[in-house]
Amino acid sequence: MPVFGFYKLYLSSDRKYVKKLKNLLGFIPGNLSLYRMAFRHKSIATNVKKGVKNSNERLEFLGDAVLGSVVAEVLFKLYPYKDEGFLTELRSKIVSRVNLNALARKMGFEQLIEYDNRMVSNTRQGSLLGDAFEALIGAVYLDKGYEFTKDFLINHIIKSHIDIHKLEQTETNFKSKLIEWCQRHGKDVSFDLVENQEGESNKLFSVHAIIDGEVMGLGKEFSKKNAEKLSAEKACEALGI
Amino acid sequence: MPVFGFYKLYLSSDRKYVKKLKNLLGFIPGNLSLYRMAFRHKSIATNVKKGVKNSNERLEFLGDAVLGSVVAEVLFKLYPYKDEGFLTELRSKIVSRVNLNALARKMGFEQLIEYDNRMVSNTRQGSLLGDAFEALIGAVYLDKGYEFTKDFLINHIIKSHIDIHKLEQTETNFKSKLIEWCQRHGKDVSFDLVENQEGESNKLFSVHAIIDGEVMGLGKEFSKKNAEKLSAEKACEALGI
Repeated sequence: MPVFGFYKLYLSSDRKYVKKLKNLLGFIPGNLSLYRMAFRHKSIATNVKKGVKNSNERLEFLGDAVLGSVVAEVLFKLYPYKDEGFLTELRSKIVSRVNLNALARKMGFEQLIEYDNRMVSNTRQGSLLGDAFEALIGAVYLDKGYEFTKDFLINHIIKSHIDIHKLEQTETNFKSKLIEWCQRHGKDVSFDLVENQEGESNKLFSVHAIIDGEVMGLGKEFSKKNAEKLSAEKACEALGI
Repeated sequence: MPVFGFYKLYLSSDRKYVKKLKNLLGFIPGNLSLYRMAFRHKSIATNVKKGVKNSNERLEFLGDAVLGSVVAEVLFKLYPYKDEGFLTELRSKIVSRVNLNALARKMGFEQLIEYDNRMVSNTRQGSLLGDAFEALIGAVYLDKGYEFTKDFLINHIIKSHIDIHKLEQTETNFKSKLIEWCQRHGKDVSFDLVENQEGESNKLFSVHAIIDGEVMGLGKEFSKKNAEKLSAEKACEALGI
């Protein structure tokens, strides 16, 4: 329906939406319904068929994959003499939920996301942004193709907003991240050494990250410090922080 | 060096290699060194710079990402009314090491892979094929671009070699897979219920998958059967089967 699509651009609400998107993204979007879907959280979506909602989750699946592929190529070419372990780790830092949330906030996505705030807890609201960022990449890909999306990601996002060399140097410190989060949310946190299970080496340390009395993460490592770190990482994962 | 590259095509060894690749892949490759690298296992690679070898591992990192992206789009479009959980699970089945190994074997990659068989155990040799398959996708992408790679994957690989609807129906049974593997390799396997850790719900079952006396996987679930399944899955992961 190209004629109808073209006509729709001139409806006042669509015109405003196009302008907003152009300001945020730097290009004129084609199929607006894709972008609307990318910013629609499941808490506000309606069923399109039994069990499937018109929320951004399917687009997030697609966008996550396209983003992973573009970032893989960027790093592959940027670091010709680094091995695949290095590339994998650096990519996870770039596409981590924390990094994407911050990126989406910086880009002003908050004004576009639609969700029902009665159904989303405060602590979960942050990750809506990163989810929407991935969904947006899915929408751009379907609307404009791979080369356009790659170019958009490299020139509009990565070059302006992501300091790859800085990320390369930072080791994500999950323990201090978890402690800070607990302080901010008035929760107790402790790291408790627990007994190993039957059959496990006695050189192994098992640590529980416990928040307000509840085990939120388990780490097993050959040093107590690393077991604590791992338990904190698991807890961060479980809490979505 | 396009002239040199063109000339190289006429060297007898290169001519043979191009013919072989064309027979296997259905297209004429451009940059032969990429394809040679895709089929070069680290056991036979040489150092190009300190710590970095001219093996297929970096290409595998890239190819894995491109493959993930193409398969994501294929499934996104093939199943417009399935949610992202369904899509994610089906994609993992398609790009599983087991599936890619079988695919690479079917496509005749064995005649192209270079490795030192003194350094690779028999049980690991199977997964060289899947690794090389991913690396090949990385090589095709760098040589020909995204659209070409997508077209190659869809028309030459997925349509001819992968029965997506069959994969959709098969539930991967890790327990029987692990038991079969142990029988084939003369190893004992057992699934032992272990005590829960402090603070864990007493409705939770914890099961160790134990192979020749060594804990290879831990599963925690709310039914004993599911805990066994999960422990088997973890063990399969750890063993690379």
